[in-house]
This record gives sequence, structure tokens and C-alpha cells, in this order.
Amino acid sequence: MKVLVLNCGSSSIKFQLFDMTDKSILTKGIAEKVGMKGSFVGLDKENGEKVKFEGEILDHETGIEYILGIITSQKHGCIESLDEIDAVGHRVVNGGEKFSRSVLITDEVQSEVEKYIDLAPLHNPANLKGIYAIKNLLPGLPQVGVFDTAFHQTLPDYAFMYAIPYSLYKKYGIRRYGFHGTSHYYISKRACELLNLELNTQRIITVHLGNGASMAAVRYGESVDTSMGFTPNEGLIMGTRSGDLDIGVITYIMQKEQIGISQINTLVNKQSGMLGITGIASDMREIEEASVKEKNPRAVLGLNMYHYRIKKYLGAYAAAMGGVDMVVFAGGIGENAPKTRKAICSNLEFMGIEIDPGKNDGLRSEEAVISRDNAKVRVLVVPTNEELVIAEDTARIVSALKSSGTL
Amino acid sequence: MKVLVLNCGSSSIKFQLFDMTDKSILTKGIAEKVGMKGSFVGLDKENGEKVKFEGEILDHETGIEYILGIITSQKHGCIESLDEIDAVGHRVVNGGEKFSRSVLITDEVQSEVEKYIDLAPLHNPANLKGIYAIKNLLPGLPQVGVFDTAFHQTLPDYAFMYAIPYSLYKKYGIRRYGFHGTSHYYISKRACELLNLELNTQRIITVHLGNGASMAAVRYGESVDTSMGFTPNEGLIMGTRSGDLDIGVITYIMQKEQIGISQINTLVNKQSGMLGITGIASDMREIEEASVKEKNPRAVLGLNMYHYRIKKYLGAYAAAMGGVDMVVFAGGIGENAPKTRKAICSNLEFMGIEIDPGKNDGLRSEEAVISRDNAKVRVLVVPTNEELVIAEDTARIVSALKSSGTL
Repeated sequence: MKVLVLNCGSSSIKFQLFDMTDKSILTKGIAEKVGMKGSFVGLDKENGEKVKFEGEILDHETGIEYILGIITSQKHGCIESLDEIDAVGHRVVNGGEKFSRSVLITDEVQSEVEKYIDLAPLHNPANLKGIYAIKNLLPGLPQVGVFDTAFHQTLPDYAFMYAIPYSLYKKYGIRRYGFHGTSHYYISKRACELLNLELNTQRIITVHLGNGASMAAVRYGESVDTSMGFTPNEGLIMGTRSGDLDIGVITYIMQKEQIGISQINTLVNKQSGMLGITGIASDMREIEEASVKEKNPRAVLGLNMYHYRIKKYLGAYAAAMGGVDMVVFAGGIGENAPKTRKAICSNLEFMGIEIDPGKNDGLRSEEAVISRDNAKVRVLVVPTNEELVIAEDTARIVSALKSSGTL
Repeated sequence: MKVLVLNCGSSSIKFQLFDMTDKSILTKGIAEKVGMKGSFVGLDKENGEKVKFEGEILDHETGIEYILGIITSQKHGCIESLDEIDAVGHRVVNGGEKFSRSVLITDEVQSEVEKYIDLAPLHNPANLKGIYAIKNLLPGLPQVGVFDTAFHQTLPDYAFMYAIPYSLYKKYGIRRYGFHGTSHYYISKRACELLNLELNTQRIITVHLGNGASMAAVRYGESVDTSMGFTPNEGLIMGTRSGDLDIGVITYIMQKEQIGISQINTLVNKQSGMLGITGIASDMREIEEASVKEKNPRAVLGLNMYHYRIKKYLGAYAAAMGGVDMVVFAGGIGENAPKTRKAICSNLEFMGIEIDPGKNDGLRSEEAVISRDNAKVRVLVVPTNEELVIAEDTARIVSALKSSGTL
């Protein structure tokens, strides 16, 4: 079975084509600047070759049509005909309280996802565009939705409710949803596989540090808490997002600066985080360089804040689970920044966390245990692979429906 | 030396008169509904008698004049003349970054406190009214300001800064100030006295649970983190305050409900917290009753959320200090609610916290160790006494200035 995985953002379309017989990636790439000037499709071929196709991509449907053309082309393609694609799996950001697992996209599911546009105004509409496009371009092809929020639907009520009037939960669904669920699921499962341990015996704290960043407390295979909340702004300090912040700060700034809702949202989502503190960049590599080379005090401050916030969540989630057996790092920063991992884990021996510098230093983008051999808590790096989860869920659901004759 | 301690709120004036030779309380009481209908002064006499004086109290100065009359009256007074009062100590809520300790109130100090009105619009103006009133009524009497924020001025920058544009810190002083500092200071110090341990060897988490509630990480005698922030809304769930909340929730509600800054502030400060979740009350006793007698599901949810938030902060602050040696409960709830203390401390054996039910159950308003004898972390109940700290600081500062001839 061949599965095409699509992750549609507001101006980009990431794609990967999997051959599920051996879970190999036949081709992958990204369409960027969709609907903007300078749009293009970048392709990473199986042989390592990278190709860039420039051309006007007006919208998501044009982009996907372009991609489908490329992957079936004689020169750069990997399949001969679109008929070879058995199913498409989509990343969908917010599945609300309705979806606690991946599902076949029916008209009913589609309209449910449309309902949640309000909860994820930046993401769900883009995800839906991918679904509509496939429906038009490859009518009848089974599509599966894999939700960022699904893995966190196991949170207990006392962890997902906010201490605001209960009526607001009933009326608007205001609660903690959490995001990056596919990543937290994958890395907790994969970490157990690597250590040959049963997922349902382990208390794991997963630390996904990318441009967006979140942590989860995964107890015996279920997410019981996570740092992103109603929106992806809550929790950790991110590239340009503030993370946790006294809400009194928001109303104070709005009043003092005489700005409205959309401006304050821009401030906390686009001008805050590492960029806001350091004034240098949202990119951790640039900030680390400034902190080392120039000893830039705001770069140092920003890094200290970044590490400290994560350290506090490690303690909080250990307390939430009555202890911790494993910590797993993933995401662009989690996988590639040994100094960041070291700083986060420093001085946590009291809870059994001890990094082995010999294993951690220099380790990038590789599955590995980085804790000391005799440490109580195993600390790992596990490069995340959300696309694989989407492909697997899609293949599993479509196969089951086919063999039961439903599809 | 006799010291009058004043804690002026927006419509109340709490007072205590101390004889500092033996730190005894000569008299104490409260003026309530200042500037409102039905105002009165309630007096707790040294002999246990309670007296209520009804009368129109137009403003703070009238109220303080009334109080001074009562405490020197033949029938209910405890001193013969106002000349016996050597100094007045005031609680001042926000001392900004200027005041890291208590100070003699000079004209300069007064105008600094006036500058911080903006940061504590509900509190500093009331505190100042008390200062102005004493200046008018007892001119020349030394007055000392004791700041709620002072104890937290030792927070490292990475703990007090928010991840928003740095310029907002410079322009408006937006940072974590923390409150209840006098209480966190007192209970951490007192806990060490009780155990005959040196404060500067201990990592203590102080848990002040009253109508307002906050926690602090006190490492070797210095506050290194605290849960209240720029405003007293951040952190724990309180009677009517939300505590930590995704800021995306704020803008979402403002947009959906079409409400402005003052209404959203009212919502998160007066209609949220335990009241908002349970719909029953802000008072923990009523909520506990509803959870037990009626098995009210929202009362149960509210209590679970309340405990869980504190439990996570215990973990976070232990991580922040590289471990914890002592946990100290105080405040109306912390001192009087054994079930609350038990629920908070449950399942934290991994970090050395173990309550002894025999010591905890039934313990109210008493200094006591409530952890198991062999537990790694000592857990204590220490009834707080902010007024004593204010009296001591006032006496110390005034004595020193007098003996050096400055006063």
C-alpha cells in the first residue's frame, strides 16, 4: 500500500509518499509560498538529489496538483501513475473533543473539522484545503485525518479545565486541548521500543522543542498533561511565542499601548518568545552564537529563561505522575542542541535525571540514550516522525475498512 | 517600644498594636466598609472580649482617627495616650524594583510608592492613604513601609522576566514581582526556628493558601521564584481568581463575548477560580461540604484542580532549586484544611514528601511538623504572622535610626 501524507499549512504543503510494505519514503518535499510571490516546490528524491520547481502556485489545490504531477513525472517521479496511491493521510491540527483517534474522512467528519475552525483559525482551514483538493483531484480516494489534539484527549478533567466560569467551557469549548500530539505519541512509543520496555509501564516526559515547543506527561501510554493549552501559545518559551504569561500583563499592555485584540495576539505570538527577549532572532543557533561569541547579555538571559521554563515543567510533570521513568527530547532543537539538553537537565539529580556528557555532547538527529548508565531516569533523544504515524494510521484504517468491505 | 501596624485595603483598615518588649499584642481589630454604608470598627481585646463600634467612616483618615480614639479610650483602650505609640508600620503591596527591604517612610519614599500606584492600582493607593492619615493625625511619628514584593526581589532575572519584548520591561517594568512576600519570609524563617535548622542551609517551598494564594521557592533564605507575577492573578487557583491561564483564552473571550479590558479583568479576578469552576462559592469550606455531602461533581472537579495546580508547583519549585528540604503550609486554608494538605502531598514520595496522617488530620492553626518521621522532606504547618514581621521591621529600623541620632 502506498500512502501520501500531506501537512498543509497556511502557505505551505509538506508531502511524503510512503511505501507501507517496508515503510520506506519514496519521495518527499514541500511546496512553499503558496498563494504568494516566489512560490516553488522543493523535492528530496530518494537518491538524495534535491530539485526545485519554480512556478506560480495560486492556492493549495494548484500546489497539490503540481506535486502530484512531479511525483508521477518520468524524470523526477517515483510512481508511474496516481492510481498507485492507495490513500492520503492529512495532519489536522484541532479535532476538538470529538476526535480522540485518527478517522476516515467522511462528509460528516469534514463538517466536524470545519466546526473547529474557530478553535484553530490559522491551521484547520489550511488542513481542510488539502482535503478538499484531494477530493477534487482524486475523487473517491480514501483520506484519513490525524489530529494533533487526539493523543491529549486522555487528559483528566482536572488537567484540561481552566479555573474560569464553567459556562465558558460549555459555551465555547474553552479547555486545554494540547498540540503536537502525534509527535508526543511517536517519541514516547519509539523510546520504549528502543529500550525494549512496555509503554504501559512507563512514566514519560516528552519534550518537543522546535519552532513551536511543548511538553507532555505520558503515563502508561496516555497523555495526562501537556503544556500547550487552548491555543499553541501556552507553556514553553518558543521562537516568537511567549508561552506562560500573567494574564494581567495582557490587559496592562492593551491599556497602556492602546492596542486591540489582534495586535496583542500578534505581539505575544510573533514578537515575543526568544525573539522578544533577545532582540536578536527566533532561531536558537543565532542566539547561542551571540551568547558565546559576544557574550550578549540578552542572549544569555533568553537561553537561561528557555532552559528554566522547561526544567520547571520537568518537575511539574514528574509531580503530576508521582515520578518519572524517562525523558525524551525531540524536535529541531531537542534533537540537535546538546548544550540545551544539558542545561535543562542540570541539577536534577534529586529526581534521578543525570545526563552523560560523553553520550550527549555532539549528538545530533540520532536515536540514543544520553543519561548515565546507572541513572534512575532514562533520558533519550528520539528524532520525531509525525509523517510516519500519519502514514501508519492511514494504512491501518484504510486496510481495516477495505478488508471489512466497508470501503 | 510600642508599634502600631496598619494594613489598609481599599475599604478596610486592619490594625494591631504591639508591645515590642515581649512582642505581645495589646489590641487588634479592623475597620470595615470604609467609605460605604454600615461601616464599623471591630475590636479584639487582649482579654478575648470582642466589641463592635458602629459609625460613619467616610475615609481612611476618619477610620484611623476612630481607631486611635478607641485604643486610647478608658473603657476599651489599652494605652493612656497616643504618645505611647513609638512608630507605625504599614503594609505596602508593591514596592517595585526599588524596595528590597523595609524602609523609613520619607517624602522621597512616599513619592516612590506613589509611582507604583500604576502597578498595584487596587492596593498602593489604600496603603498610601494610611500613610497620609498618620502624617496628619500624628505628625512627626516615624512610619515604616514593609513591602509585599520586597522578599521576592532576590529572584534571578531568568525567573522574573517574561518572554515578551524586552522593551516592555524597560518601559513599564513588566516583570514578575510576586506578593505575600512578608508571609513567605515569616513562615520559611519560623519553620527553621521550630526545627532548629539554619535558614541558609534549607531549600524550602512555602505554600500560602488564603483567599489569595501563592507559593515561593526559598533557597538558603532567599526567594528564587514565586507563583504570583506582575499581578496577583498569576499562579495558583484562588477563591475568585483564575491563576495560570492560556492568554489565548483571554483574547478569545473578549472577542466572542464582545467585552473590554475592565470586564475581562473582572471575569478573571472576581468570577473565576473556585467560584467560577464550582458555581457554588469561593469559600473552600462550602465547596468541601458540597463535594462530600452532595458529591457535587463540579465541587469535586474544583478541588481536584486546586490540589493539582499546587502539586505541579511543588514539583516545579523542587526542580528550580535542585531539590527540596522543607514544605511549609500557611494561610487560612493551608493552616486549617488537613484534607487539602493531604491531597496536595499525596503521591509525591518520589521527591521525599510523605505526610503522616496521624499528625496532619485534625491539625488546625497550630505550628507542627506533619511529615512522617523518616521522610526526606519535612512538611510543616506554620500559621503566618505578617503583622509581627511588620512590627519587628518597624521597631528595628526606628531603633537603629534613633540610636544613630538620625531620628
